[in-house]
Amino acid sequence: MTDSRLQTFAPVGVRDGLVTLGPAALRVRAALEAVFTGWAARVGADEVQLPPLIRVGDLARFDFFANFPHLALAAAAVSTAPDAGLPTRGVPADSRLTGTQLDGAEYVLPSAACYNAYLALGGARLEAPVKLTTVAQCFRREREYQGLRRLHGFTMREIVAVGDPDTVKAHLAEHKELIADFADHLGLALTTEVATDPFFDPDGAKAVMQRLFPTKEEFVSDSGIAIASVNYHRNFFGERADIHLGGEPAHTACAAFGIERWLHVLADRFDQDWDAAEKAIRSYPGADGGPGPGTTAPGAAR
Amino acid sequence: MTDSRLQTFAPVGVRDGLVTLGPAALRVRAALEAVFTGWAARVGADEVQLPPLIRVGDLARFDFFANFPHLALAAAAVSTAPDAGLPTRGVPADSRLTGTQLDGAEYVLPSAACYNAYLALGGARLEAPVKLTTVAQCFRREREYQGLRRLHGFTMREIVAVGDPDTVKAHLAEHKELIADFADHLGLALTTEVATDPFFDPDGAKAVMQRLFPTKEEFVSDSGIAIASVNYHRNFFGERADIHLGGEPAHTACAAFGIERWLHVLADRFDQDWDAAEKAIRSYPGADGGPGPGTTAPGAAR
Repeated sequence: MTDSRLQTFAPVGVRDGLVTLGPAALRVRAALEAVFTGWAARVGADEVQLPPLIRVGDLARFDFFANFPHLALAAAAVSTAPDAGLPTRGVPADSRLTGTQLDGAEYVLPSAACYNAYLALGGARLEAPVKLTTVAQCFRREREYQGLRRLHGFTMREIVAVGDPDTVKAHLAEHKELIADFADHLGLALTTEVATDPFFDPDGAKAVMQRLFPTKEEFVSDSGIAIASVNYHRNFFGERADIHLGGEPAHTACAAFGIERWLHVLADRFDQDWDAAEKAIRSYPGADGGPGPGTTAPGAAR
Repeated sequence: MTDSRLQTFAPVGVRDGLVTLGPAALRVRAALEAVFTGWAARVGADEVQLPPLIRVGDLARFDFFANFPHLALAAAAVSTAPDAGLPTRGVPADSRLTGTQLDGAEYVLPSAACYNAYLALGGARLEAPVKLTTVAQCFRREREYQGLRRLHGFTMREIVAVGDPDTVKAHLAEHKELIADFADHLGLALTTEVATDPFFDPDGAKAVMQRLFPTKEEFVSDSGIAIASVNYHRNFFGERADIHLGGEPAHTACAAFGIERWLHVLADRFDQDWDAAEKAIRSYPGADGGPGPGTTAPGAAR
């Protein structure tokens, strides 16, 4: 490539909170994903791909519009009315569709990967805990966007447990250990912080949020970026999504990884040497497809 | 899993045009992706991840709203006005956000993976052709949704060439051969059809579409599903996105693969035996990470 304007092929290009990743960053992303899906396999979580949209009515069940309207992007149909006056060639680059140019929206874009997991289990009467892992393109409106640190669209990997309180709490404890161990391996200095939730609307219903995320803990880089979190929702989603285990609303918990934030922190750690970052990740036990740390034999931990 | 309602863990669950894929189908998807990205590597296409949204103003440059308004889903901000009356717990499942509940939309969800590729190259003065591959979550409103055949949200892998006419036409010829060879290997009976473009609005500006997609050819299963297409856009995107090579607007072409449609056709072909489908794909030269067909040594074709 001889044209320096081809940001496509640079490892990372960011504009207006939207990111383009080139080959080098994508190789690091694939290596990270191998680690996280390896952890998921260890704890017996099935890999699932969930829908890219969530029904308005389903999100309302989770008090989403009461607590997070400022984050939400709806998927609104564009009007096909002859007088809609839709933009044509030559309009300004920052043109918007407004008013009668938009029909209604039946769906909202996910702001986190796990909502659709609880909805997928809606109505279930479980006989045993369920674990799953998924990766989702997520979207959040923010007051401002900052490189890979705070994006309009980003990728979230989650490893989710649904079951009795002890099982889901043990799920979080195990992931806290794994995250700390992996950070040590990479030479990342992470601190654990009980979170001021990034979802949190400073003007909003704090009491509800504290109930929703009473034990959110974040893993924060020395540059102040939360790259992972573990979240215990008690029986909130079990009640709201009607998921039961042993006659009681199930408890839920998830470990969540903001992929682009990991890329940002790793690029810093390895002085923008993406190949060195990839090599460091691939040398982590399990990231090459072999058994992970603490696993005495392939599959033994499943 | 003992609960048959857990559609999450079935290979495929579809509701209202939105799909959930379980582990077995995801393994087949990964095997397919290994084949397609192997082809991309053979032709020297870099892997890039492009933004998940497209600016309204950028799509207008491609006459998108003149030709495809009926397909479009805009990413509209949800109103945070105190009197917006957003839905709360207990609203009907099919609730919609309408009118003043929505603020404007600066972005539209992609209906194809390659628009953002041309935009990423916008303004480039190339000294040589460029090839890239990308996979994108795409969205299309349709009159009706049919299982995996016609989805509201779907995954499209594309292998794109930008350059002189001969290079991009050779790109399509090479992919036509590869697709036919792969279909033979899998025992899929595909026919090639000059397309009635699925984008095509029957009430719309047909003349413009014929100019835009004059040489679209689709690969259609015996059940009538187009699972791949090769598309030659002449210099349309080169002009509109201001991509030049040797002083002329670049020509562009892409090979496109509808991943969920491949899954549908493969499930039919292998009588819902997903493991057999995966095995068949993995036995295709190159799908196991080794060199592809016609490659005399690893990397020789790059």
